[in-house]
Amino acid sequence: MDKRVLKQEMLKILQPEQVLADDLDLMYYSYDSSFLTKLERVYPDIVVLPRATEQVQRIVRFAYENNIPVTPRGAGTGETGGAVAFNGGIVIDLSTWDEIVEVDVSNMQVVVRPGVIHADLNNHLAKFNLFFPPDPGSSLMCTIGGMVANNASGLRAVKYGCTEQYVLGLEVVLPNGEVITTGGIRSKAIKNVSGLNLTKLMVGSEGVLGIITKIRLRCWPKPKARGIAMAVFSKLDDAPATVLEVYQAGILPSGIEILDKSAIKAVNQFKPEIGLPEDAEAILLFEVDGNAPSVEWEGTNIVEIAKRRATKVEWATDPQRMASLWEGRSVTATAAARVRPDGSRVFAGEDISVPLSRVAEALRAIRSLGEKYGIPVVNYGHIGDGNVHTAPVIDPENPAEAEKANQLVHEIHLLAIELEGSTTGEHGVGAVRRQYAELEHGEALKVMRLIKNAVDPKGIMNPGKLI
Amino acid sequence: MDKRVLKQEMLKILQPEQVLADDLDLMYYSYDSSFLTKLERVYPDIVVLPRATEQVQRIVRFAYENNIPVTPRGAGTGETGGAVAFNGGIVIDLSTWDEIVEVDVSNMQVVVRPGVIHADLNNHLAKFNLFFPPDPGSSLMCTIGGMVANNASGLRAVKYGCTEQYVLGLEVVLPNGEVITTGGIRSKAIKNVSGLNLTKLMVGSEGVLGIITKIRLRCWPKPKARGIAMAVFSKLDDAPATVLEVYQAGILPSGIEILDKSAIKAVNQFKPEIGLPEDAEAILLFEVDGNAPSVEWEGTNIVEIAKRRATKVEWATDPQRMASLWEGRSVTATAAARVRPDGSRVFAGEDISVPLSRVAEALRAIRSLGEKYGIPVVNYGHIGDGNVHTAPVIDPENPAEAEKANQLVHEIHLLAIELEGSTTGEHGVGAVRRQYAELEHGEALKVMRLIKNAVDPKGIMNPGKLI
Repeated sequence: MDKRVLKQEMLKILQPEQVLADDLDLMYYSYDSSFLTKLERVYPDIVVLPRATEQVQRIVRFAYENNIPVTPRGAGTGETGGAVAFNGGIVIDLSTWDEIVEVDVSNMQVVVRPGVIHADLNNHLAKFNLFFPPDPGSSLMCTIGGMVANNASGLRAVKYGCTEQYVLGLEVVLPNGEVITTGGIRSKAIKNVSGLNLTKLMVGSEGVLGIITKIRLRCWPKPKARGIAMAVFSKLDDAPATVLEVYQAGILPSGIEILDKSAIKAVNQFKPEIGLPEDAEAILLFEVDGNAPSVEWEGTNIVEIAKRRATKVEWATDPQRMASLWEGRSVTATAAARVRPDGSRVFAGEDISVPLSRVAEALRAIRSLGEKYGIPVVNYGHIGDGNVHTAPVIDPENPAEAEKANQLVHEIHLLAIELEGSTTGEHGVGAVRRQYAELEHGEALKVMRLIKNAVDPKGIMNPGKLI
Repeated sequence: MDKRVLKQEMLKILQPEQVLADDLDLMYYSYDSSFLTKLERVYPDIVVLPRATEQVQRIVRFAYENNIPVTPRGAGTGETGGAVAFNGGIVIDLSTWDEIVEVDVSNMQVVVRPGVIHADLNNHLAKFNLFFPPDPGSSLMCTIGGMVANNASGLRAVKYGCTEQYVLGLEVVLPNGEVITTGGIRSKAIKNVSGLNLTKLMVGSEGVLGIITKIRLRCWPKPKARGIAMAVFSKLDDAPATVLEVYQAGILPSGIEILDKSAIKAVNQFKPEIGLPEDAEAILLFEVDGNAPSVEWEGTNIVEIAKRRATKVEWATDPQRMASLWEGRSVTATAAARVRPDGSRVFAGEDISVPLSRVAEALRAIRSLGEKYGIPVVNYGHIGDGNVHTAPVIDPENPAEAEKANQLVHEIHLLAIELEGSTTGEHGVGAVRRQYAELEHGEALKVMRLIKNAVDPKGIMNPGKLI
């Protein structure tokens, strides 16, 4: 459709400030955090910023009638190109629709519009002694809508699970413009097994089945206390072995993070004053939370278990000391980007997930792959659930390096599948990991496509993503 | 199809002892625990007991080619007629296929065939310091396959969630006989956001999308300690108010159960030696678990909070005293059935779920409805997540009473929806709650049907159930 006509049509539905069509405006929507869109910008025809279900409905109905692709977008912090309009058309930016509709304290739940920022939600919930446990690294930027669409998680998934675990119901605008409410039209129930579980099908569906316009989340009582243990290992395999022994002791920490040799080196180079032990092969960080006596008991036991293998163990509940122990982990992502003065970090192949028993094997193999391609790779991540983050660092302006990085990333993805894992533990598939869908899912991919076609027969909803 | 021909065909796939076609055998498959099938038995044409994926595949493919309805069945402990063949055809009894394929201790997961009994699984996992948290009342009988198909839960859902939270992957024989593996063909990952979440769509789909033949479950470290608090209230509203204050104190008990006046009376009538306080309007039972210091802290705090409203509070960690405090709750279901010497309990309308803030209102309204119809109703259940169990007691041989019970149950279901809850918190829809699907889900029901038709275009898979 002619872009001017498209703009006129959108202005029938929205106010002028809710419609963006200038090149400069569209530029901001031509990428996300993925390497793919860093290499090549992709522009939508138009961007709209609705703030009402009826507006979304009218936009989508218009798109449906005119076969125009629709790409929903939150804060654009994704690393898969999921919110980028590879087929052009309309980007629906939901980030300005950020209303916390209702905190229902007596039923331990909250209703939000998709644009609410994760950190803002938890700051607001804290006033009611509640919290929404998933905690992505992009907490200060990412939207709840984006988290639901991608089934985001983060540090605390090991104990608290992913976003899906907290989603009780959704309002969704379907590809044909109809609006449904999953989890019961008027329901405020916490438990509900009536009907097919469309809520959980929509979570993580990356916008290919519809636009999420309202979210009902279960909240949890906010834990009263927290503690951090750090353990340093001179042998890589000692790290997963220690994690397993902690589990065996009946302890489920709220987070278990690993920095391998590459990450330790990167952190020390970036901030020498942190002073991580240079000769270590791995550092584990355990976070435990709960009531104070429980935190103390778990900390004491983790220390005792870790001491069997670690060269150094420290435990802290003092906020300042905790922050200091955690600092190495906090700066890893930034530090990774600085391992080469002329380099920058590539967000690709950055999110594999493998069984805990194969984490050490995965880290060693990734190191070898980095050497094979001559690319430094920094490894860290959520070892508690096998979700490893890898950061290849290249000069992205150098096409030969970019090409090598893509080959490296391809091998990392294949490695994850080979090690009985997945190409993505939390960041999603988007446009960048679709090619592995058949290898990961086999015949199940057919069923995914049957469902996609049934719900979106014209294929207008976030085309080119997920499946 | 002629039953003799059907039997011959099944004998081409299975051994003679795996095929049941005699009337007496079929009689055992003509009902489950539902009131509906107590009133009217429904016979399948044949029952088969496969113990291999390939056998299930051949059976289903034959059914598909010949348009024969297929009804999967576990232990038949369901209360919705979900495993009863209302349209005749083949019942696939999976209860004898009870292999624990693999306990993968180092990855905190277990792979089972559908017929494994819940209690057997947890007894086995205990050897490895692991457990599968959901705990249905029918633990000694029900199968893991049935739990997955119904997204079962029980006492501990308030802290540990429902079955779905633990299902990492499924092998499913589709209605056309094809076999898929959800959650990744070879995956042992705990976190995996690749592809549409077919795993969670299958959980709770009550057999309408396929036959579950293998289940990969996440396990948790087994908690080391447990404690029980009992609180007695002279005002019904004080019970939910206390529950809310416990949450507000940052405590998430592993179970919070309520017995209202009707249940207290039933228990005392059935077993006077338990000696529950006759004048109480409600009794709450809190179970907390975790490490010992945490259990002690939570118990102490629950007691302090409960004392603000309760007439009596007791806390125990001694196993014998815990069992004794819990005894009233343990015998409630049995006691309910004995409130009339000539009566028996009806399993219908037994499983509504309402928001915590409306539990007291629900219990009062159910009492009034019981009086309106002249039917004693015993109320108890999982107040922590608003899942109330109601037990109408009638003489089922008396058609007038049965008719009145059905009217009562209908009003209970409507009440649940009216109170912003659901007709079913954990038992499912099956054949008995389909009529409320539109009222509960509205337009979303259309999407459920689109998915059902896409996956099962011939409609052979458990017809007449769920949607």
